[in-house]
Amino acid sequence: MGDLYHWVALSMAPGIGCVLFKRLVEAFGSPAAALKASSKDLSRVEGVGPKVITSLRRYDWKSTAEKELCSLEKIGGRILTWEDDEYPPNLREIYDPPPVLYLLGKVVPQDRRAVAVVGSRYPTTYGKIAAERIAFGLGKLGITVVSGLARGVDSSAHQGALASGGRTIGVLGCGIDFIYPPENRDLFRQVARQGAVISEFPLKTPPDSDHFPIRNRLISGISLGVVVVEATLRSGSLITARFALEQGREVYALPGNVDSARSEGTNRLIKQGAKLVMTAEDIVEEILPHLKEAPPPEPPQPMVSPEEAKVLSVLACDALHIDAIAVRSGWPVARISAILLSLELAGHVKQLPGMRFLKT
Amino acid sequence: MGDLYHWVALSMAPGIGCVLFKRLVEAFGSPAAALKASSKDLSRVEGVGPKVITSLRRYDWKSTAEKELCSLEKIGGRILTWEDDEYPPNLREIYDPPPVLYLLGKVVPQDRRAVAVVGSRYPTTYGKIAAERIAFGLGKLGITVVSGLARGVDSSAHQGALASGGRTIGVLGCGIDFIYPPENRDLFRQVARQGAVISEFPLKTPPDSDHFPIRNRLISGISLGVVVVEATLRSGSLITARFALEQGREVYALPGNVDSARSEGTNRLIKQGAKLVMTAEDIVEEILPHLKEAPPPEPPQPMVSPEEAKVLSVLACDALHIDAIAVRSGWPVARISAILLSLELAGHVKQLPGMRFLKT
Repeated sequence: MGDLYHWVALSMAPGIGCVLFKRLVEAFGSPAAALKASSKDLSRVEGVGPKVITSLRRYDWKSTAEKELCSLEKIGGRILTWEDDEYPPNLREIYDPPPVLYLLGKVVPQDRRAVAVVGSRYPTTYGKIAAERIAFGLGKLGITVVSGLARGVDSSAHQGALASGGRTIGVLGCGIDFIYPPENRDLFRQVARQGAVISEFPLKTPPDSDHFPIRNRLISGISLGVVVVEATLRSGSLITARFALEQGREVYALPGNVDSARSEGTNRLIKQGAKLVMTAEDIVEEILPHLKEAPPPEPPQPMVSPEEAKVLSVLACDALHIDAIAVRSGWPVARISAILLSLELAGHVKQLPGMRFLKT
Repeated sequence: MGDLYHWVALSMAPGIGCVLFKRLVEAFGSPAAALKASSKDLSRVEGVGPKVITSLRRYDWKSTAEKELCSLEKIGGRILTWEDDEYPPNLREIYDPPPVLYLLGKVVPQDRRAVAVVGSRYPTTYGKIAAERIAFGLGKLGITVVSGLARGVDSSAHQGALASGGRTIGVLGCGIDFIYPPENRDLFRQVARQGAVISEFPLKTPPDSDHFPIRNRLISGISLGVVVVEATLRSGSLITARFALEQGREVYALPGNVDSARSEGTNRLIKQGAKLVMTAEDIVEEILPHLKEAPPPEPPQPMVSPEEAKVLSVLACDALHIDAIAVRSGWPVARISAILLSLELAGHVKQLPGMRFLKT
């Protein structure tokens, strides 16, 4: 606990963000050593100017950290540092991981397989249902659903994951002692119980609007991919998607009718290269293929028509050029071409280069 | 007209499809010569077996062609052959272009810039409106809209194009003397007047269901790209999309809510790589950039927040690393990162490799 105390103290120091924190620890070996370093030694660290040093000197880190840890204990919260095994491993890989995470509940090894489901705070019914359905599906597939515990899509995503019996992590843009929005009190507690509520902000940090973009990079950072369910063109979810791309995460989006303003952002994402997602399986297929333990069920084999059967019989032995198939079946090439397509779509025939076809 | 007579005669010959027609003309120099060739000479052509020769010998090509041309004249139709300048140039490039096209109306040089708009015969209101809107937009941009004159999306597409004052081509799966479906009588006439109605099928050919896949390859073949508006997973429009890909055409699809069966096919197409389309401009931007004569209007420049202004002022002169921006502005990197993203989205800042940023 002695060491946590210094981690909290340094992370709460004025002017010290994630990157400077990292440099100080690299320079002095530990947060404790950094806090006790002389002004002269501090000034040798890149990015530490007189302003930072002055405010560090004035900073009553002992009492700040004491109070913080005491308050945290009261609400049953914990601190995870970079060095903890429990610290989300995906998050450790981003450019600016927070040195300290405030936590209610717990992070478990399977949370490495996490997917974020985010979107509009004011979704349509379609968006709400889709978020819940996808999160439910992810939960059933053993994926941890990450979201922001905000109104709308976030809430639906957490609810879907909870309903599936799966794990879910809520990442806050305020201290973990704040319940915002207030109507999410029950959801908040369930998420903390069936997963974790996480924040990089100290206790008592209010949910200011400029905290949300900062928080969004954690949502994507904890996850292997981000699904955007509904978003207007000005939605913060698009910022989460951008963070995801910068962090090398997959971006998925739910398509929607082009006359719905809430699908403008998601359709635009797809247009720009995000993967269109319809179901939780779509996501798992693409980024987490090793998670699918059972082989996918065989698609039902549609019956073939008499025409198709004839073409198949022509193809019985060997790959044939389309002209040869036409000649042998006695039908024009255009008709054969249509039959072959239908057979190909049904999986009975495979096209080879040069208009040749093979029975599968 | 004498030559047309032989073209029609050979194209209507039993057992002679597009590919065999082509080989016969290559072998004998013209349809007339092919019709008059001896059985011995005919048998030397690849794909012409005893069966084809027997039926050719029994075929009363003179009276067949005479009757056909006479009937065609009565309905005011014409024939286009491969050799006509009016023959749609895009269509000439496909693997199996029909040697003879039946035509009401006319094909003009600008029809080279054609885009097909196809989809479900039983669309939702959303699909109908989208088809009409996209076709209207294409028409306004000087693109000829190609479709199949069927119920549903096809009809909406033709209507949208007609309403825009643009050109439209209807490709039939029956003879051009058939009006099918019957309720499309007026639409059929308007399309023939403001564009063309085309078929490769002889007169009196009824609209059999197995003609439609054959017809679909012409819809894509005439066009530079195919837009699928709504389609179930079993829709013939997906076959058109497949033809389009085989013919090297672009495939576009309108996204839709994933809980709509009529959007399952289009969403799946997008998932498989088709381009998501929201407006006619999306299509023109991608495949026909030279058609856009006027430059796109400047997007309105959103105002910057005081925070953004500060970051911009830090970036005034030169590209800076994100850490340097953080140090100079006195804000943590995470916050800077969010502000930079917002500036980048608004076009004020450009990200360079290595987390460096430049004012634009």
